[in-house]
This record gives sequence, structure tokens and C-alpha cells, in this order.
Amino acid sequence: MHQEKLTGYVNSIETELERYTDAEGEWSGLVRAMRYSLEGGKKIRGVLALAFCELCGGELEKALPLACALEMVHGYSLIHDDLPCMDNADLRRGKPSCHAKFGEANALLAGDALLTLAFGAIADSSLPDAAKSRAVSVLSAAAGYKGMAGGQFMDLKYEGTRIGAGTLVQLHSLKTGALIRASAVLGGMAAGAGGKTLAAIDRYAEKLGLCFQIVDDILDRTADAEELGKPAGNDEKNAKNTFVSFYGLEKAEEMAAGLSREAKEILNALDGNAGFLLWLTDLLLERRK
Amino acid sequence: MHQEKLTGYVNSIETELERYTDAEGEWSGLVRAMRYSLEGGKKIRGVLALAFCELCGGELEKALPLACALEMVHGYSLIHDDLPCMDNADLRRGKPSCHAKFGEANALLAGDALLTLAFGAIADSSLPDAAKSRAVSVLSAAAGYKGMAGGQFMDLKYEGTRIGAGTLVQLHSLKTGALIRASAVLGGMAAGAGGKTLAAIDRYAEKLGLCFQIVDDILDRTADAEELGKPAGNDEKNAKNTFVSFYGLEKAEEMAAGLSREAKEILNALDGNAGFLLWLTDLLLERRK
Repeated sequence: MHQEKLTGYVNSIETELERYTDAEGEWSGLVRAMRYSLEGGKKIRGVLALAFCELCGGELEKALPLACALEMVHGYSLIHDDLPCMDNADLRRGKPSCHAKFGEANALLAGDALLTLAFGAIADSSLPDAAKSRAVSVLSAAAGYKGMAGGQFMDLKYEGTRIGAGTLVQLHSLKTGALIRASAVLGGMAAGAGGKTLAAIDRYAEKLGLCFQIVDDILDRTADAEELGKPAGNDEKNAKNTFVSFYGLEKAEEMAAGLSREAKEILNALDGNAGFLLWLTDLLLERRK
Repeated sequence: MHQEKLTGYVNSIETELERYTDAEGEWSGLVRAMRYSLEGGKKIRGVLALAFCELCGGELEKALPLACALEMVHGYSLIHDDLPCMDNADLRRGKPSCHAKFGEANALLAGDALLTLAFGAIADSSLPDAAKSRAVSVLSAAAGYKGMAGGQFMDLKYEGTRIGAGTLVQLHSLKTGALIRASAVLGGMAAGAGGKTLAAIDRYAEKLGLCFQIVDDILDRTADAEELGKPAGNDEKNAKNTFVSFYGLEKAEEMAAGLSREAKEILNALDGNAGFLLWLTDLLLERRK
């Protein structure tokens, strides 16, 4: 039942994403690169937006443009992170990364165009104008220099440098946590949820995001390339600061379990009927490709 | 008198731009790269927004966040266009380009962060929510795959290939024209101008943008590096399609003069008191660094 709902969410997002790009015209090659980078993946950010919209009693159609915007921002970040001057990754989700397939210049532009389109998707949605403005504000803050871009900056800055636990948490809160929090919160906002509910959603997503990153670090150490859909051991090779390199495997696994428990407690307090989100939380924190 | 007004506009924009970035924190190095890329330049897009806001009887404060957003988008586009995988330019506005100074990865992120911040600047402004939504929509369309990013894609796609006049005009309408049109239109929108006025402003800016690009192409052929603030003859070196390479210098100069005349006719029809914008139009189409 939960799996069906998840599949339904993912299908809605994938169908809707197609509608935002018009491949007819001189830009068709650019649109191909944009669409390529939206394919596959678990659509976690979009799904979180839809699930929290539904949990708060909103119509899914209201959250769908926000879900697409979140996936566009995530897609752009993967393209740019994979570029040679960043993580230099030729493989992503078991396929050639965007620049490996379309060339570096086209990949750069495809990322730029996806980021740009994300904000247009919100502005052109049928949400009330006040909700659109808030959503653009939240997404911009989450993706910007004090959010995801700032986290990627920190990641590069500290590559090969041993950092403290506080800095490590901040790095990942910005790099991956900020967009995951925005995803959950935007879902609640699409449903018109009040400030207290949005704050609880934000706290849940903060735990989830951190836990998600710890699990990611664990998998990079323990899983093989086929399970990951990308080369394993990349973090160690690039001398990245990870929770595993800092705390060791065992302690990292304990931390992930604790955060997962706390996240689910917040969900339970938020709504007695959070079955799907409880299930999703567990799913996201299991092995993932 | 006109020069004083222009200086006032540029100063307002530069002062306001500083307010959008907080340099205290782990992201300070990223903010330095962002600010560096906003320094200098004529702030043409921001000035157009302010000037059309004033022409339409609006308060400058309303247009100022839009002017800043336009300059952020322009700044991001310069950073990314200069990157090694694009135009590979080490010099910009007489200074090292962003990646030459801060490294490729930081330049990429600084561009991303500026683009992201632009939409947040609009959403966090004091404009009415309906105006914010429209402004985000207009800016996203102008900068996206059917606008500026699409034009840059075409430019790279056709490098070294001889193209027809229609394609050449489309390329530049997207690459530089779209953002210039958005700049003028957003200024009118900040003043609450009606559809007929906005359409006239758009027509003016379309002529201006095309003329601006032709003058740019002419200067790349005729001016020296000191006048340009960047190496001259870059277009020829990179086998770019330019109006000079297509029409020759003399015909390109005729076209620029014709477009400039038409642009000023539209201004005169729009408002009998368009003195500043008439003067600005001439200024923009003279030699520029």
C-alpha cells in the first residue's frame, strides 16, 4: 500500500517534470541534457513535498509544482557537483553523468537552466501569490550561499583537511540538509499549514537530512559500485570529511539509528496517521542506489 | 544632469547589492567571489529597471530589488561564460575573471549562488505578492533555456559554423536580448505600468538589445584591449558568429544606427519626457568598456 503510494507520487512528479520543458527549437539539445539529468533517482525531495502536503490535508496538485522545482534544483546540483572542476564524477545513478554524455559546456548550461526553471515553475503555478513568494524565498535560501551552494563550498574548502564535529555537521546541514528541509516544509506550506506545524516538519526533516547523509557516508564505505550506482570509496579517494572518517563505522551507525528514531517520534507527535511517512523514513535510510 | 542621475542610479544599485550578502561565516570565501563579480561594469540592466520605473511614475525603492536581481543574474552569466569549458576568458572588465582569481570550482559556485540569490531578492522584497510572482516568472523565462541560457547554448553550438541571418538574430535575442528586455519591463512592472506601456517598453528594449550586441561585435573588431577591458579580436579567434562576420563592418554600423533611431522613436512616443532614457540609449551605444 505504501509502496503503491510512493510509486504514484514518483510517477506524478516524472510526468509533471516533462511538461516544464519544450524540446522544439534551437535549444532542443539543451533540453535533452536537462531532461536526462531529471531521469531516475528516487525523487526523494519531490516525494517529501507531496507527502507533507497530503499529511497536512492539502491537495497534491498544489504541491506538484513545488515538488518539480525541488527536483530541478536537486538535478542542477548533481550536474554541477559532478563536473571535472568539482567532484569529477563520470558516473551518476549507474549512467554517464551529464557532462560525460553531453560535454562540459552543455552540462554547465543544463544545470544553470534547471536552477532557473525551478523558480519559474513556482511563479507560474496556481498557488496563491503569497504562497509563491514564500516558496521562492524558502527555496532560494535553501539552495543559496547560506544553504546548498555554501555547503558544497565548505566541502571543497575542507577536502583533505581534518575538521571538527561541529563543522562537519554544519557542512552537511548546508550541503544536503537545507534542501531536504525545504522539501518537507514546502509541502506543508502548499497545504497552508500553520507555523507550529511547519516548525515540527522542519525539525523532522533536519533529523532526516543528517541521518540520510550519515547513511550515505556509510554506504560509500561499505557498499559496492553496483549497489551505489556510482564508484564506491569515492569519499576516501577524494579525502572528503565524512561521518565515517570522523566517527568510524560503528559510531556512525549508532548516530544514524538515533536520528532515525527521533525523526519518527516527531512524525508521530505531528499526526497519528503518519504511516506512509514513517515507512518512507525507514525506506530512505536503508540501502539506496 | 543626466550623468548625475546615472551615477545616482549606479550608486544605489551598488550599495543595495552589498546588503544581500552576509560575509560572516563559513561561506565568506564564496561571498567574496560573488561580490567580486558584481563589482564594476556599467550596471546597464539595473539602471534600465530604475529608469523605466521612474519613467512610469513608480518609486525607485520598488525597482531596486529587481535591479539587484538583474545584476546578479548578469553577474552569474559572466562568471559561467568565462569558465574554461565555455569562452575560457581570463580577463573581464580589466581584471582577472572570477575563476582566474578564485579558482574554477569557486567561480562555478559563485555563479550558482548569485543566480539563486536573484530570485530570493525578488521574493524577499517589499513589492506586492502578485508583482513578485510576475517578476520571478519574467526573470526565469528571460534567463532560462528559452532565454539567456538557450542563447549561450546556441552560441557554443554554432561556433565555427556559418549560420543564417535569422539564426544569428535569434541567438543574440536569446543570449543578450532577453535579459535586457526583462530589465526594462521589470522596471515598468515595479511602477505598476499597464500592458500597453509594458509592450512598448519591451519593443524599445528589443531594439536596444540587438543594437547593443551589434555595437559589441563592432567593438570587438575595431577597439583595442585597453578600450574593451578584455582582449580584442576574441570573436574572430573563437570563430564566433557575429554581426560583423556576417554583414561586414559597414553594414553592421548602418544596422546599429537604424535600430538606435527606432528605439528612440519608441521612447518619444511613450513619453514626451524621456530625456534621460534618450541620453542613456545614445550612451550605451557609444564606445563602452
